[in-house]
Amino acid sequence: MGVHQLNQNVPVILVIEDDDTIQTVVDTALSDAGFEPAIAPSGEEAVTLLKGMKGKYRALVTDIGLRGKMDGWEVARQAREFDPEFPVVYISGASAADWPSKGVPNSIMLPKPFAPAQLVTAVSNLLNNRTPTA
Amino acid sequence: MGVHQLNQNVPVILVIEDDDTIQTVVDTALSDAGFEPAIAPSGEEAVTLLKGMKGKYRALVTDIGLRGKMDGWEVARQAREFDPEFPVVYISGASAADWPSKGVPNSIMLPKPFAPAQLVTAVSNLLNNRTPTA
Amino acid sequence: MGVHQLNQNVPVILVIEDDDTIQTVVDTALSDAGFEPAIAPSGEEAVTLLKGMKGKYRALVTDIGLRGKMDGWEVARQAREFDPEFPVVYISGASAADWPSKGVPNSIMLPKPFAPAQLVTAVSNLLNNRTPTA
Amino acid sequence: MGVHQLNQNVPVILVIEDDDTIQTVVDTALSDAGFEPAIAPSGEEAVTLLKGMKGKYRALVTDIGLRGKMDGWEVARQAREFDPEFPVVYISGASAADWPSKGVPNSIMLPKPFAPAQLVTAVSNLLNNRTPTA
Amino acid sequence: MGVHQLNQNVPVILVIEDDDTIQTVVDTALSDAGFEPAIAPSGEEAVTLLKGMKGKYRALVTDIGLRGKMDGWEVARQAREFDPEFPVVYISGASAADWPSKGVPNSIMLPKPFAPAQLVTAVSNLLNNRTPTA
Amino acid sequence: MGVHQLNQNVPVILVIEDDDTIQTVVDTALSDAGFEPAIAPSGEEAVTLLKGMKGKYRALVTDIGLRGKMDGWEVARQAREFDPEFPVVYISGASAADWPSKGVPNSIMLPKPFAPAQLVTAVSNLLNNRTPTA
Repeated sequence: MGVHQLNQNVPVILVIEDDDTIQTVVDTALSDAGFEPAIAPSGEEAVTLLKGMKGKYRALVTDIGLRGKMDGWEVARQAREFDPEFPVVYISGASAADWPSKGVPNSIMLPKPFAPAQLVTAVSNLLNNRTPTA
Repeated sequence: MGVHQLNQNVPVILVIEDDDTIQTVVDTALSDAGFEPAIAPSGEEAVTLLKGMKGKYRALVTDIGLRGKMDGWEVARQAREFDPEFPVVYISGASAADWPSKGVPNSIMLPKPFAPAQLVTAVSNLLNNRTPTA
Repeated sequence: MGVHQLNQNVPVILVIEDDDTIQTVVDTALSDAGFEPAIAPSGEEAVTLLKGMKGKYRALVTDIGLRGKMDGWEVARQAREFDPEFPVVYISGASAADWPSKGVPNSIMLPKPFAPAQLVTAVSNLLNNRTPTA
Repeated sequence: MGVHQLNQNVPVILVIEDDDTIQTVVDTALSDAGFEPAIAPSGEEAVTLLKGMKGKYRALVTDIGLRGKMDGWEVARQAREFDPEFPVVYISGASAADWPSKGVPNSIMLPKPFAPAQLVTAVSNLLNNRTPTA
Repeated sequence: MGVHQLNQNVPVILVIEDDDTIQTVVDTALSDAGFEPAIAPSGEEAVTLLKGMKGKYRALVTDIGLRGKMDGWEVARQAREFDPEFPVVYISGASAADWPSKGVPNSIMLPKPFAPAQLVTAVSNLLNNRTPTA
Repeated sequence: MGVHQLNQNVPVILVIEDDDTIQTVVDTALSDAGFEPAIAPSGEEAVTLLKGMKGKYRALVTDIGLRGKMDGWEVARQAREFDPEFPVVYISGASAADWPSKGVPNSIMLPKPFAPAQLVTAVSNLLNNRTPTA
């Protein structure tokens, strides 16, 4: 399991990214911004984590092309079945132009290249716009 | 073909709705608001119309459960492949709660029951928010 | 009870408005748009209706100065305790400028004079922007 | 002066439109929606009206090509100098694609053909989104 | 007075937070982002500062439970009486779910735990969305 | 030419700012956020760069008063002629209040003083809100 130790006092963001260089950029950007990134090695394991620990993860950051059978579009759809307002940020190069037809509502696509600040702003906005619940 | 004669001076809205009662409500609401509704009898025919007459239709209003093999979610995805900002309004009863996972970005779901004014406002807002192009 | 017969196939909007002229304008505007207005004679009775029939009313349209002890600001706050995303539209003349300090988040203030279409657009937008649930 | 008698209890919308057919459409759409359209025959006269009766007009609806020296882009700029949040809706055929470079912020462009409901929704939204003031 | 020396070239943000740990997080996040945080020890003193130095503070960041008689909800209401568009960010754990009924319009609630970047993004967005005035 | 070496893997932001102190603040803020700032010494040269290398620059950050004949308002208008959705952020002290009449639609004005985080959030939001294209 590539999942970091989870900190109760920090929002945990589930990240699925196969490319090691991009994964490091995402991991560093989120950590520097005060989030706790939790890396999932495949879409299938990400869905298992989301199902098993409801409420633990506050947002999903996912690449589109993943090493298992499930791509990022499908992971986001399944995440939204558990939580209809779950924040979703996609990262992609070649697949960015498919977002208007394959993305979920109220999600954000970051086409590569993107600056780390764009990722942090995207995740922050999606979290800040949720109606807080008891 | 259930498609009305198309008026050059009025925005044409493609409508896919099997239920005759709802179809009449939608048809009347759009016509009274000054739009030209064009009824497509199935998702497959709607996609054929969108492919064959690019730029003719300004928005899609679709039910989810349709009589062919293609449901409303799939029609919207194909419409967005032709035009990434194509306005989409879904109408549904039982399937409304699937919108967060199956809808396309920047679309609107009208859960039944809805007032005709909600449909007109939804279509108008999606059209008004597009960046005009040459 | 000033409440109309409720129609299962039309969204019901709870309206609190003491001024007979404005009440007629609001009632006519909502009915013509395809909503079912349900008139409550005071804020206290509106809160009782909202508590007693959860899910029945889809939005609140309220004046600020009401004949009971409870004003429109307080009715909206109580409505939001039952449903954190309950659509709220305020109508007011003299009190409109208090909205930034006394209104609830994601509500709309219609300062008098307003056109009936503004009311219909306000209610429609608030309904259309809700995430549909099962 | 082509200006209608102004009604104190109805929001007055200043309209500049040379084409008689479109002017009739706009006039009818706004009146049916409960607004009071006030027709100005040229951009110059519109600016004179806005300067002379501050607070009288609640929004501007303007074509781009006008019969005087001043076009619709310039009228909107001058209207915004008097009131930085003045609601502006442009109507145009050939000039619609110039909106991203020549329009003012927070305005709406309605490319022809448009449905009357789009105009009413545009004006209503701009009015409803203003922060009410004393 | 717990108020820092104010810098003319930096936007000053008024902060009310009793919990020392959270206060340090907020103070550091805002300073690192280029804001000047000014700490007020109670809601009463915050209101006195806002009244006494109009235009000095650009935004309010407040906890809900405060040590004086005035809670964060009330401070925000009073801040909005001076300036109807004053940016307000609430921070809270237990009270976050009261935001839909007790918050002011166009404010942001950050439920704990939150990342420092969420606070910075919230304050930046509220400031960036204001219409600039002379 | 004051233009930095351009990095293929980082979004390049075109910056026009005569004041050396502000230019350093902007340059540092964008670089720290992961963008590549490219400084243009005048509006005329900025327009030449935008024309000559379409797609190279992702956003414009510009002061209003510039040393050539072309001011920041005009540069933004010309940038939008090439790309109708080109992200534009203005920075200004004295001219900020002219934004409602002279700015382009969907742009952001940062009145001085502003925090570096406001600039980064403004640029990030404009980039994140674009519909990705092939």
